[in-house]
Amino acid sequence: MTEFNPLPKGFLWGAVRAGIKASGNPDLAVAHIPGEANAAAMFTKNQVVAAPVTIGRRNLAAAAGRVSAVLVNAGNANCATGEPGLEACVETCQAAARTFRCVADEVFPSSTGIIGVPLPVRKILDALPAVAAGMGATSAHAKAFTTAIMTTDTRSKLAQATVQTERGTIRIFGTAKGAGMIHPQLGGPPHATMLAYLFTDAEASPAQLQTLLAAAVEPSFNSISIDGDTSTNDTVLLLASGASGIPLHGSVTAEFQSALTSVCASLAHQIVDDGEGVGHVVRLEISGARSSAEARQVARAIAHSPLNKTAWSSADPNWGRLLAAAGNAGVAFDPTRLTIRIGDQLVFEHGLRAHGFNEAVAHHTMQQREYTIALDLGEGGAACSFLTCDLTEEYVRINADYST
Amino acid sequence: MTEFNPLPKGFLWGAVRAGIKASGNPDLAVAHIPGEANAAAMFTKNQVVAAPVTIGRRNLAAAAGRVSAVLVNAGNANCATGEPGLEACVETCQAAARTFRCVADEVFPSSTGIIGVPLPVRKILDALPAVAAGMGATSAHAKAFTTAIMTTDTRSKLAQATVQTERGTIRIFGTAKGAGMIHPQLGGPPHATMLAYLFTDAEASPAQLQTLLAAAVEPSFNSISIDGDTSTNDTVLLLASGASGIPLHGSVTAEFQSALTSVCASLAHQIVDDGEGVGHVVRLEISGARSSAEARQVARAIAHSPLNKTAWSSADPNWGRLLAAAGNAGVAFDPTRLTIRIGDQLVFEHGLRAHGFNEAVAHHTMQQREYTIALDLGEGGAACSFLTCDLTEEYVRINADYST
Repeated sequence: MTEFNPLPKGFLWGAVRAGIKASGNPDLAVAHIPGEANAAAMFTKNQVVAAPVTIGRRNLAAAAGRVSAVLVNAGNANCATGEPGLEACVETCQAAARTFRCVADEVFPSSTGIIGVPLPVRKILDALPAVAAGMGATSAHAKAFTTAIMTTDTRSKLAQATVQTERGTIRIFGTAKGAGMIHPQLGGPPHATMLAYLFTDAEASPAQLQTLLAAAVEPSFNSISIDGDTSTNDTVLLLASGASGIPLHGSVTAEFQSALTSVCASLAHQIVDDGEGVGHVVRLEISGARSSAEARQVARAIAHSPLNKTAWSSADPNWGRLLAAAGNAGVAFDPTRLTIRIGDQLVFEHGLRAHGFNEAVAHHTMQQREYTIALDLGEGGAACSFLTCDLTEEYVRINADYST
Repeated sequence: MTEFNPLPKGFLWGAVRAGIKASGNPDLAVAHIPGEANAAAMFTKNQVVAAPVTIGRRNLAAAAGRVSAVLVNAGNANCATGEPGLEACVETCQAAARTFRCVADEVFPSSTGIIGVPLPVRKILDALPAVAAGMGATSAHAKAFTTAIMTTDTRSKLAQATVQTERGTIRIFGTAKGAGMIHPQLGGPPHATMLAYLFTDAEASPAQLQTLLAAAVEPSFNSISIDGDTSTNDTVLLLASGASGIPLHGSVTAEFQSALTSVCASLAHQIVDDGEGVGHVVRLEISGARSSAEARQVARAIAHSPLNKTAWSSADPNWGRLLAAAGNAGVAFDPTRLTIRIGDQLVFEHGLRAHGFNEAVAHHTMQQREYTIALDLGEGGAACSFLTCDLTEEYVRINADYST
């Protein structure tokens, strides 16, 4: 997306270089809501969570779902930093509260980057005046926010949607970061080092936003996997400034849900597409399952299978590996009722290779940047759609890169 | 192992080139037990199983645990081959029964290799006379068996043990193959494309052997993972010829169990050590768990984490990834009670990096071919030991190798 549509009203964005990223790129992003926003959040289900997840959850509860400022640093995850890490996070929230004239509980913190290194609090405090001085509501300001939150991302991720109502237009703007350690499992009221921020000018209560967010996250952020590793910092935050003056009820709510889900789906797709070393984006369509949970389980087993992911990297239509991974999902099914399709082509049915299966055609399909693999389990009526990617030598190089 | 100790009595081994492997290497291996053996087997828990798994299970049941011949082909898995695949397997068993003068139910079949390609029955039938003519009980014969069952293995895997009793010596000889798609989950009476064959001249009933085998498999073959993919063909077979004349009872049984477990553990270690592209073998020692199942769950989460496996490939002491993977295991624990050790060195405790942790020392430890990573969850008294390996560019190359 190069051109922005009009942004939701009620938000100011800004970003500066605080010197946290080794690259020297902008690494401190702030969103300020002068009139406050109602908020809902979902955080990682990992047993180990970073300090900002703990503090963000606590602040949201203490402020009854009201947020005045979002404070994001990239370059340091403030995770596995113990009690000092929690204190560091609180200190930055307090400083942001002074800068943006709100209470500390109304500051929502996020961190992403290296684990186990103390947060450079001083750098953040020193950078706050500059970021505050440069805040604004233009596309350039929003763009600066989307760029400063990046870590190993090669490009910023953003999506927009509008809901037309009798009373005018509701706008949604979303941005996200994340390229590795991506298999978000968001749950519980307030859970990602996928970070996603969703801004809207609709009028809605925190409870209403939580319901809308949970429904939007399930088929989007919770249905993607790059490497199967779930971060300690994953967070999705939805903020509603109310500045459109349009409340969510009746058919408007349904349309808003649809628009919000589409924004999340677009961001989720952008994350997979920008995954570390990704050569191919694979959409797994699992149908014929007894439940959507079982469909999801089969999708995850395939998405996390190194043998499938490596085969995809060379466009190898090795359907035996698909079959073995599905059989390994912990879901009971009769292989003779299973069908497998690569693109439009039937590959496997009745317990064996389909008649007329053309391997060259499948190979050609798999040479595309993005394609679909569909499995029908033949056991029931439930289905799911899941986005994943190949595993390449480049992924190994990126993540094995270590020098002493 | 270059020199063999004396082999268990009652067995003949042989192998020939049947032309199934594209390489032209020996690919048909037979073990013949002229006086019959009592047997126990464990097979893959994958929902999709190869024809020889179905037939092997059926034959063992029909013959009440008696086996006269083991017929193994490498180069073709006879999996996802439908009803014709089952018929092909039966046909080879019938032919082997005629060759070795037994009933077809007493033939135990195994196949390993490519999935989804019809078994070349004719080649197997044609090769049977040659393999029968060349059978023998020498080390060279046993060695030929261990080599013919290999697929992507770079070396054959074998282990021996003896049990000294008042009545003489019981001998155990084991061999296994497997280098990829290795995360065996063997279960149920009779369940592995890890294949393992254990030969002993002890006297034991099939039921007794099943109990001994299950206990030996759990800490060995069921406690390793190369890539987390569980094959459709995994099989472990234990055969007792009784030719020593020494029955298993009392303290002899306990000693036999220990010897059998050590043979399985050695073979399991050899499999990981010969894993596709493996640069480092990592022993995960998980302690302080509430149950051994939870300890195993944490070990598997780490063993299947691409971010950890890639870090290991470069000897990167990235303990944050260990922490994130453990937290992602679905096991509840308090991160402040968790400790992490790499080799002898304490890395993480009290929720943060341990005082005095020396990264260079950890890096040095991790440069060794084999080392231990230990996590104590601080939640209970249960523990497990689990063998796994790194994920290298070489692994990706091997498994992405595809040309049309």
